[in-house]
Amino acid sequence: MADNAEYEYDLLVIGAGSGGVRAARMAAATGARVAIAEDRYLGGTCVNVGCVPKKLYSYAAHFHDSFDDAAGFGWQLPGPAVFDWSVLRDNKTSEIKRLNGIYQRMLEGAGVVLLHARATVTDAHTVSLTSEEGVTQVTAQKILLATGGWPWVPDFPGSEYTVTSNQIFDLDAFPERFLVLGGGYIAVEFASIFNGLGSETHLIYRGELFLKGFDEEVRAFTRDEMSKKGVNLHFNTNIERIEPNGSAFNVYLTNGDVQEVDAVLAATGRNANTQGLGLEALGIHLDSKGKIPVNTRYETSVPSILALGDLTQGPELTPVALAEAMQLVDIHFNETLPKPLDYTTIPTAVFCHPNIGTVGLSEEAARENIGKIRVYSADFKAMKHTLSGSQERTLMKLIVDDATDVVVGAHMVGEEAGELIQGIAIAVRAGLTKEDFDRTIGIHPTGAEEFVTMRTATRN
Amino acid sequence: MADNAEYEYDLLVIGAGSGGVRAARMAAATGARVAIAEDRYLGGTCVNVGCVPKKLYSYAAHFHDSFDDAAGFGWQLPGPAVFDWSVLRDNKTSEIKRLNGIYQRMLEGAGVVLLHARATVTDAHTVSLTSEEGVTQVTAQKILLATGGWPWVPDFPGSEYTVTSNQIFDLDAFPERFLVLGGGYIAVEFASIFNGLGSETHLIYRGELFLKGFDEEVRAFTRDEMSKKGVNLHFNTNIERIEPNGSAFNVYLTNGDVQEVDAVLAATGRNANTQGLGLEALGIHLDSKGKIPVNTRYETSVPSILALGDLTQGPELTPVALAEAMQLVDIHFNETLPKPLDYTTIPTAVFCHPNIGTVGLSEEAARENIGKIRVYSADFKAMKHTLSGSQERTLMKLIVDDATDVVVGAHMVGEEAGELIQGIAIAVRAGLTKEDFDRTIGIHPTGAEEFVTMRTATRN
Repeated sequence: MADNAEYEYDLLVIGAGSGGVRAARMAAATGARVAIAEDRYLGGTCVNVGCVPKKLYSYAAHFHDSFDDAAGFGWQLPGPAVFDWSVLRDNKTSEIKRLNGIYQRMLEGAGVVLLHARATVTDAHTVSLTSEEGVTQVTAQKILLATGGWPWVPDFPGSEYTVTSNQIFDLDAFPERFLVLGGGYIAVEFASIFNGLGSETHLIYRGELFLKGFDEEVRAFTRDEMSKKGVNLHFNTNIERIEPNGSAFNVYLTNGDVQEVDAVLAATGRNANTQGLGLEALGIHLDSKGKIPVNTRYETSVPSILALGDLTQGPELTPVALAEAMQLVDIHFNETLPKPLDYTTIPTAVFCHPNIGTVGLSEEAARENIGKIRVYSADFKAMKHTLSGSQERTLMKLIVDDATDVVVGAHMVGEEAGELIQGIAIAVRAGLTKEDFDRTIGIHPTGAEEFVTMRTATRN
Repeated sequence: MADNAEYEYDLLVIGAGSGGVRAARMAAATGARVAIAEDRYLGGTCVNVGCVPKKLYSYAAHFHDSFDDAAGFGWQLPGPAVFDWSVLRDNKTSEIKRLNGIYQRMLEGAGVVLLHARATVTDAHTVSLTSEEGVTQVTAQKILLATGGWPWVPDFPGSEYTVTSNQIFDLDAFPERFLVLGGGYIAVEFASIFNGLGSETHLIYRGELFLKGFDEEVRAFTRDEMSKKGVNLHFNTNIERIEPNGSAFNVYLTNGDVQEVDAVLAATGRNANTQGLGLEALGIHLDSKGKIPVNTRYETSVPSILALGDLTQGPELTPVALAEAMQLVDIHFNETLPKPLDYTTIPTAVFCHPNIGTVGLSEEAARENIGKIRVYSADFKAMKHTLSGSQERTLMKLIVDDATDVVVGAHMVGEEAGELIQGIAIAVRAGLTKEDFDRTIGIHPTGAEEFVTMRTATRN
């Protein structure tokens, strides 16, 4: 790397989120001189205002069910449990500060230089850094854009009264009445969280049904389960305007209804966080979805400028950004050519209640892409709920290519669905067949054993 | 089957447990004339005094942790939860009666004749049935022995004061002080259950460490976690004698200690339940473990007499009995030759707290049988416990054949380990490699993602 001496760094990463931190650490481990610029928190969306606090709040919301379920098992509480929002919020904040510190120590330990500044790329090898101390320039052989995504809120009268997922975890007061606008995974997750924590909860979505792109049966099942748990679902409607009403808000819907609530969450999408990066001047154009196009080497149209994670076209998931970071470092710093990621079998979970876990094709996508399929679907009450009195049900389904017997999709709605689907995802990604599933002995009594004991196809 | 007309039935099953019921139903579905003889409950050990009530009681015991964990998430209980044993016991009984009814309707629906009687085989095609109405004889082309296992208690002074897993679920009063003798999975499960329900709990085992045959690291980790949860573990000791002390018992140990407790569970093993079956007269000899030897067609030394499940040599697990039943019916009634079961990769769970899930080889067995291996082991605090204050930790490990990269074993101690290992078991049984695991994207944030993100071997 002798010719790199003309630059201060071999790699300058912009954005210390999941992908950026992983790339910085692993590049540094190869001996590269690496810096990372971040003007906000270490760990990015996932650690600070995404996966981590969301999962913690989801745990908190689940206790509500536990208290209800316990009676059937002989446990008597002396009175109703009381929820204190400030305890959850502040304990979450402490935990995230701890994680921020771990990220800092990991970066420092790897020899990565931390630049607390806002970065703008000014040419193919130069970045301008703006901080309280002023503006400086640094140069690098390669620049990695890893600034992730940012919530997007549509413009409507009173939209300024909404909060996004960036603020929702830190509300001053607990919203006794909560409304979420949106139909994606963030919307259903927060609807479940606040419903579980005790809010009167409304979900407003302009479409027929939330979770577009997921398996249709999963979507309908989730709708029914969330309704049973008490979330008020309002489909085919939108927010017309929001008006403040004392410390509360009146939310006027396009269907004529008005909801008075204490907080409105706009979970209306996320955009690639490209503002201020300087892309236009460099001639890097965004695609129709506002994402940065990259080739299989993660190079933008300026070859020394790389990008990964939520800025680019793949699924907006932390483990995808991590995997891309490791591939990118292999390509650019280890000079190896890793096998490309298989984006078609990336498993994911939605932490609505009950949880969704999914990998591979939906029934509809399989029908369209493969043709003849077999669908194995089971809808049952989990053993726990034979005593708990809860009416919660569990859905599990497998989609099989009829010609090859390969399991092309696996879906679950139920307790700990993400935990169950992870192992199944190894099998699906590897292309294992329904016979491979059938030849595996079940673990009794579990819910997961259903995945290996589905003998008869529900439909073709 | 014209020549079968000389017999009343094509198949007479003795024992309506998991294996017997499955074999009876599936044989009947082929058009065979099938009867099943049972003098006790329908569903066998699993439904009545095994898997099902055990799992329900394990759920009950887990609530204790939930109540403790909730405070860190902002939930305040107005006072301690109170446990009422009779509610759990009686709700369990109602649920099991419901399951018994389901079994009865399934058998009747399949056209299986139910014989409420004790059965003794008198010759290769004849069974003598004893009930309150007297003794009758029935004949069958094939007779299937499926009477399962039965608890075994060693003989020592006062051993008559112990109860077994057959009685423990139905104790009249909750044992505030509970002692279990044994080192197998039943012992650790009941120790965790009663500890969780609030008993002062002691586990007595004559060996160095419980759960012989499991991965050593799993055994040691489970010991430490159970200790942390408050189970009093007494290894290298045994019960010398038990003396009644009012409504309680003094348990004298060989190490000189005396424990005063309210109930003593002998979880000291199970034997094949062969008594009274008439095997001796038929010339069917038991092997050194007291099991009935069968060939790959499940035939005993008398070819018309078959046996499966806990009576025979495989692992004593419901799903194994079910799989064997389906194989047996394929061989004898569908005249097909199914692929043999792979007994080396049968996954299983132990419902101690935290749960154990395991499939394939232990580290020790792999080292002995394979030679050069790689071990990936992670010991961490689950995300939930960053806020709960619980000190519970999770262990996950993978054992990899270094030469082939095949994952030959996967082990976990932690919440819902059985649920997580089921999917992993599909991968392990199919012989997938560590690279297959690594190429699968993690589901974040879950515990299970650890199984696909273990980059660096802990040891060779």
